Amino acid sequence: MRYELYYWPSIQGRGEFVRLALEEAGASYVDVARTPQRGVPALTRFLEGKSEGRLPFAPPFLKAGNLVIAQTANILLWLAPRHGLAPKSEPARLWAHQLQLTIADWLVEVHDAHHPIGGAFYYEDQKPESKRRAAHFTAERLPKFLGYFERVLAREKGGWLLGKAFSYADLSLFQMIAGLRYAFPRAMERLAPKYPRSVALHERVAARPRIAAYLESKRRIAFNQHDIFRHYPELDV
Amino acid sequence: MRYELYYWPSIQGRGEFVRLALEEAGASYVDVARTPQRGVPALTRFLEGKSEGRLPFAPPFLKAGNLVIAQTANILLWLAPRHGLAPKSEPARLWAHQLQLTIADWLVEVHDAHHPIGGAFYYEDQKPESKRRAAHFTAERLPKFLGYFERVLAREKGGWLLGKAFSYADLSLFQMIAGLRYAFPRAMERLAPKYPRSVALHERVAARPRIAAYLESKRRIAFNQHDIFRHYPELDV
Repeated sequence: MRYELYYWPSIQGRGEFVRLALEEAGASYVDVARTPQRGVPALTRFLEGKSEGRLPFAPPFLKAGNLVIAQTANILLWLAPRHGLAPKSEPARLWAHQLQLTIADWLVEVHDAHHPIGGAFYYEDQKPESKRRAAHFTAERLPKFLGYFERVLAREKGGWLLGKAFSYADLSLFQMIAGLRYAFPRAMERLAPKYPRSVALHERVAARPRIAAYLESKRRIAFNQHDIFRHYPELDV
Repeated sequence: MRYELYYWPSIQGRGEFVRLALEEAGASYVDVARTPQRGVPALTRFLEGKSEGRLPFAPPFLKAGNLVIAQTANILLWLAPRHGLAPKSEPARLWAHQLQLTIADWLVEVHDAHHPIGGAFYYEDQKPESKRRAAHFTAERLPKFLGYFERVLAREKGGWLLGKAFSYADLSLFQMIAGLRYAFPRAMERLAPKYPRSVALHERVAARPRIAAYLESKRRIAFNQHDIFRHYPELDV
């Protein structure tokens, strides 16, 4: 089956967690809004209710035959077992999903560090608020989340979040660390030595052949200042 | 099986979505941190990694035999099909889960309306920021979310979010509307006429015998000013 991924064409954003899974799986997919023929209008049609299938609230969503699945973690819940990126047992799948949902919560906090008042305002219109929130984020929330995943890696053993079984949760933790290093290089350089298992996981994911090829390709959108992960030096303290 | 729910004992919070499902199911459960014998220490043991099972990042989590499941939507994903609160087909279950995840996103925005700088600061220490964020929330985000669920109810027909099949997603939408009416009575009174299907769903859920009995019981914690839904008149414009 050829999947259709619908996501904003110029950012990694939430769609990147799905792209990484599709790439690691070697799945056949088209990143619809990035194709010149179809572009963003093909995506907005769904949001406007002009398409078949269940109504998504927001991108990303994945079209797989007649199925239209939205919400990043929900897409991965469905997609990963079909491509060997999640174990077969129900407890292990729930666990992978639980980790993905925790990463989703973390990602909201990364976004809100530069947009505490809301996505409708420019960063420039919420700079003092961002400074306050980002200081709290780098001092407390970032170590809390990093510490949690480090503890999980220590408990589960085997080097991956599910122990010896590599899964999409590992791809997602890789993406968090890559993004945080872009957005908060100073904070991450200071914190990294405390989380050696997570840093090692990041390196091992980056070295996986399909992921390494993807990261080198044009399909990987560069981190940029319109994305969830943004680098504002004044917020990186 | 007797479930053990672990959540903070004095708020509805995220745990309430699980409580509603357990109550509607007539399931046997103990709300552990609310029992005098065990209390909050029984909960924090898990967060400190002193218990069996997978490590939760935060409450709520549900213990079902040896399984420890965290993340509200993940708990419901597992629990609901066991109690007739989710359909059997995989597409319908994904759809219910997708709606629950959208509600989870909405709930974060409700919380952040009074805590835009972060949960570690008192509301009193972020009042100007809250005013800005709450104005944006009531003017734009609240109608966007309400409008989405209203459109879903119109598309799916049958009166419930999954069409004719009642599910935990309906319980969760009930809880959102109940909470929003407490927190933003003026905004909700102004907006309600535009979302008649959602308002009707709220009334029908409230009238379900087990839910009605629960809402009258001492098990239902009252809305209060330490919870996610909070009523600050100055934020309700």
